[in-house]
Amino acid sequence: MEKQRVVIVGAVALGPKTACRFKRLRPDADVVMVDMDEHISYGGCGIPYFVSGDISEIKELMSTSFHMERTPKFFEDAKGVRVMTGTRALAVDRQAKEVLVRRLATGEEERLPYDKLVLATGSRPVDLPIPGAHLDGVMNVSNLKTALAIKERISKGEVDKAVIVGAGAIGCEMAEALSDLWGVETSVVEIADQVLPWIIDPVLSRMIQKHMREHDVNLCLSETVREIRPGDGEHPLQVVTGARTLDADLVITAVGVRPNGELAKEAGLNVSPGGAIMVNRRLQTSDADIYAGGDCIEIPHLITGKSFFFPQGSLANRQGRVIGTNLAGGHAVFNGSVGSYCVKIFDLAVASAGLSPKAARKEGFDIVQTLVVQADRAHFYPTQDLMYLQLTVDRSTRRVLGMQGVGHNGDALVGRINSVAAMLPYKPSLEDLSNLEVAYSPPFASALDIVNATANTAENILDGFNKTMDVDELEECFLKEASEDVVCLDVRGPANAAPFIERFGDRWLNIPQETLKDRFQDVPKDKKLVVVCNSGVRSYEALLQLEHAGIHGALNLQGGVGAIKKSGVVDMSDE
Amino acid sequence: MEKQRVVIVGAVALGPKTACRFKRLRPDADVVMVDMDEHISYGGCGIPYFVSGDISEIKELMSTSFHMERTPKFFEDAKGVRVMTGTRALAVDRQAKEVLVRRLATGEEERLPYDKLVLATGSRPVDLPIPGAHLDGVMNVSNLKTALAIKERISKGEVDKAVIVGAGAIGCEMAEALSDLWGVETSVVEIADQVLPWIIDPVLSRMIQKHMREHDVNLCLSETVREIRPGDGEHPLQVVTGARTLDADLVITAVGVRPNGELAKEAGLNVSPGGAIMVNRRLQTSDADIYAGGDCIEIPHLITGKSFFFPQGSLANRQGRVIGTNLAGGHAVFNGSVGSYCVKIFDLAVASAGLSPKAARKEGFDIVQTLVVQADRAHFYPTQDLMYLQLTVDRSTRRVLGMQGVGHNGDALVGRINSVAAMLPYKPSLEDLSNLEVAYSPPFASALDIVNATANTAENILDGFNKTMDVDELEECFLKEASEDVVCLDVRGPANAAPFIERFGDRWLNIPQETLKDRFQDVPKDKKLVVVCNSGVRSYEALLQLEHAGIHGALNLQGGVGAIKKSGVVDMSDE
Repeated sequence: MEKQRVVIVGAVALGPKTACRFKRLRPDADVVMVDMDEHISYGGCGIPYFVSGDISEIKELMSTSFHMERTPKFFEDAKGVRVMTGTRALAVDRQAKEVLVRRLATGEEERLPYDKLVLATGSRPVDLPIPGAHLDGVMNVSNLKTALAIKERISKGEVDKAVIVGAGAIGCEMAEALSDLWGVETSVVEIADQVLPWIIDPVLSRMIQKHMREHDVNLCLSETVREIRPGDGEHPLQVVTGARTLDADLVITAVGVRPNGELAKEAGLNVSPGGAIMVNRRLQTSDADIYAGGDCIEIPHLITGKSFFFPQGSLANRQGRVIGTNLAGGHAVFNGSVGSYCVKIFDLAVASAGLSPKAARKEGFDIVQTLVVQADRAHFYPTQDLMYLQLTVDRSTRRVLGMQGVGHNGDALVGRINSVAAMLPYKPSLEDLSNLEVAYSPPFASALDIVNATANTAENILDGFNKTMDVDELEECFLKEASEDVVCLDVRGPANAAPFIERFGDRWLNIPQETLKDRFQDVPKDKKLVVVCNSGVRSYEALLQLEHAGIHGALNLQGGVGAIKKSGVVDMSDE
Repeated sequence: MEKQRVVIVGAVALGPKTACRFKRLRPDADVVMVDMDEHISYGGCGIPYFVSGDISEIKELMSTSFHMERTPKFFEDAKGVRVMTGTRALAVDRQAKEVLVRRLATGEEERLPYDKLVLATGSRPVDLPIPGAHLDGVMNVSNLKTALAIKERISKGEVDKAVIVGAGAIGCEMAEALSDLWGVETSVVEIADQVLPWIIDPVLSRMIQKHMREHDVNLCLSETVREIRPGDGEHPLQVVTGARTLDADLVITAVGVRPNGELAKEAGLNVSPGGAIMVNRRLQTSDADIYAGGDCIEIPHLITGKSFFFPQGSLANRQGRVIGTNLAGGHAVFNGSVGSYCVKIFDLAVASAGLSPKAARKEGFDIVQTLVVQADRAHFYPTQDLMYLQLTVDRSTRRVLGMQGVGHNGDALVGRINSVAAMLPYKPSLEDLSNLEVAYSPPFASALDIVNATANTAENILDGFNKTMDVDELEECFLKEASEDVVCLDVRGPANAAPFIERFGDRWLNIPQETLKDRFQDVPKDKKLVVVCNSGVRSYEALLQLEHAGIHGALNLQGGVGAIKKSGVVDMSDE
């Protein structure tokens, strides 16, 4: 039998994983990987940590866990995989089963015959469609070359001021990288009115925004970059937004990526309107001899059932293994993703699985959302810290659609979100989440853990017991409109309530919950009442007492003063 | 309509949760909770942290997250629940629907009528059936009273030496509590040949044992306590085991707990052979008007399908909510548990979900097990540390049966185990675990995360590609028998291999994996080969190369040198 020939186009994440998996199963096969770049098989997600200095050498991003650099020679020697770097795949001839490639250095062209072809062409950064987007000093962080260039400028002391365009994960990570260690005066311009739009909702994003501002990041939200132009001398660049002009020594664009589906499209394979390659669950394209995976494909969203573009290094690795298995005659499948996501922004972790409330509404779900603020371990355990989780539930079916959160103990937060992500493909009900088994010991969880508490709270809302208001709604009616008709009933102890009473006077009323049963006469009957405690738990109890006493219409502030403070809705920093 | 009367026997975990949940749903109802003790509604799992001094005041274990003490008055005022402390439930008259109780202080008896009764009678520590078990200074940590007594003795400086009987979670936690902060010379005597028997297997328990010994705990495994007797003067007690006599100022017994099912049994309710109350999924006993939950019941094990006794404060809380809902006419269910578990022992976290290899075999499963050693985040991220995960898989169905692990970053470990626990009720296959969606970002996970890697490794074993040996098998054939026929083939770099070659001479051969393809002639063909690298990944690659070169019969050491060192199988501390 002749040797099976596999050609892989792209050698960053999915390509190498596919090649290695396949070669282990079929050591006799002939595998060649081609890539335009000289750098291959690197951890692109590590770029912000290289720029920040957390990782000192770029080659650490290209090394195995046992500190060998993943060079073409490494792939030849250790894996038996041939690598052609600096080589561009120009076209796929599906009839002849050949890939036409060109050596970029020499212009030499070659036809690589294949039995099976794997497209791992990845994604590329979206270009800013504005004047000046290609000026010197305007960069993205899509590959190691630009990462090196950015770090070189910074470490030479050439960057006092930087502007980042886009407040997605990479924009936020880069803001930390530049300002935290290097002390670069950093502005982030974002077209949406929040950071991480669509991933999380405003209640949580405000917490991140406050945190970033406390770390001296100049956040410019709801602003569009109109132009980048040469600066006035002191700084080589100026970024002009709809609202201001920002000086910059460096501009980093991070406005998303697009799948590289051109090669596939030109070969006549099925490609989505967004340009991503369409694949089945075995990750075959519309040509069964051609597989595709990683940042160039669309995958099924396991909540919506629709196909979506979700470039993640982790998915590329899992898909790479599936393709490697299938190339060898196996029957592996990749079913899709619930959109799990995490990012560290300064000292705050953000994580998400499934749909945020806003994203769920956009998909047409009628939802209930809940914000729960609770300790990330037993509240009596010394190192506990607050965690903030938001749950999205479909109203009629009570199906859990997603959970998002922020917290300072990142591993604890990501662990909670991962456990919800693990259930989501099975279409869990609220009751499943209520009983989700979180291993318990005081150093790691609460006896009634926050992740279960989100479900309990949502159930109380759906059953009509808990009637809630969110902090952004409180901001609107209590702070902005400052209506005399809205009164906050603070059911905590007097010491907790005092600074709020000082600030808001008559509009902030204090009746500790345990005294409420004897003080209904003190509760104003002609106002819109917002019941408030530290987290929303005691205020829920109070709300039920009010209802039972015939005082209807009050609302419980979700997340309580914890959410108020963390999101900066009320600045109590003088307290 | 007359007020519904609910009586709850037991006021530690399930009782209060049930009472509060029910009262919120039915504020008109009359709820009374009785408990023998004066202390109620406390976090018993926090006792080791109170004894260690991490928690300074015992009342912190009895406080809400908003620092109010959960006294009977608190339950009356804040929750509308009547509490009778110092009151023993003597009998249940199911015909009359009354509970006979006695006030312990006065001897006064009273009959409490109920419409619905909840048994939250909990568990009690197993008595050591040996002479001297009741001497002064022999204690357990089952309640706040003994916790206070233990701490008082220690803080008075009366305890230089302590012996703990039982190396389950509580025994190990207490060993930390006594020795870490107080510097008490602590011995732990355990009848099994490992700590945490049945929860985790020897490969992992050895890692914990090494860690405990490094923290100066004197571990006496495979030893039975025969007698406790008065000491010789300097120390008031002596603990006599089959192998030695240990002086002690304090003896703590932690040999497990038994369900308190007597009240139920005497009332004619169905009780298991082990004494636990039998309930249905709605947590009703064999009398539909009597519910039971918490440490006095058995619950379905969601892997084996059998009923088991699994006392956990977290389950009590979740079950309490279910009972509260059902008392109010709702239809909540508690389906069971996969046995999720975690404990912190000094700086090491241990966590478990589902069955360990040993437990699975005991249940009759034909299993494959795998140990994976990998960084708990991207291997290039500065704060990464190794994590050790063991996976248990049913051989024929490839169903995932359980995962156990240890690691120094406890939240990261527990997060991984929780995500597996979240899948387990859905009977996941190996492929489901291989594709389990772990949110990825370098500070929190690897692109190919360890949790996915365990499934990939198991698949490679089941498919016949990876042929493995465990560190305890290596210890047997390579170290104890020291057979000349067994040779370790170290495929790491020469610097890594050098100290092992120095120690083992010809029996430790070094051929770096990337050079192996040209050096097959150097591989001994007449020896039993164990291929070794740092983790088992490179050695797997090498194993496949050997097979392909016609050198059969070699085995891959699971977890590699990482597992060797962590478990102390080979002491390389001089290295």
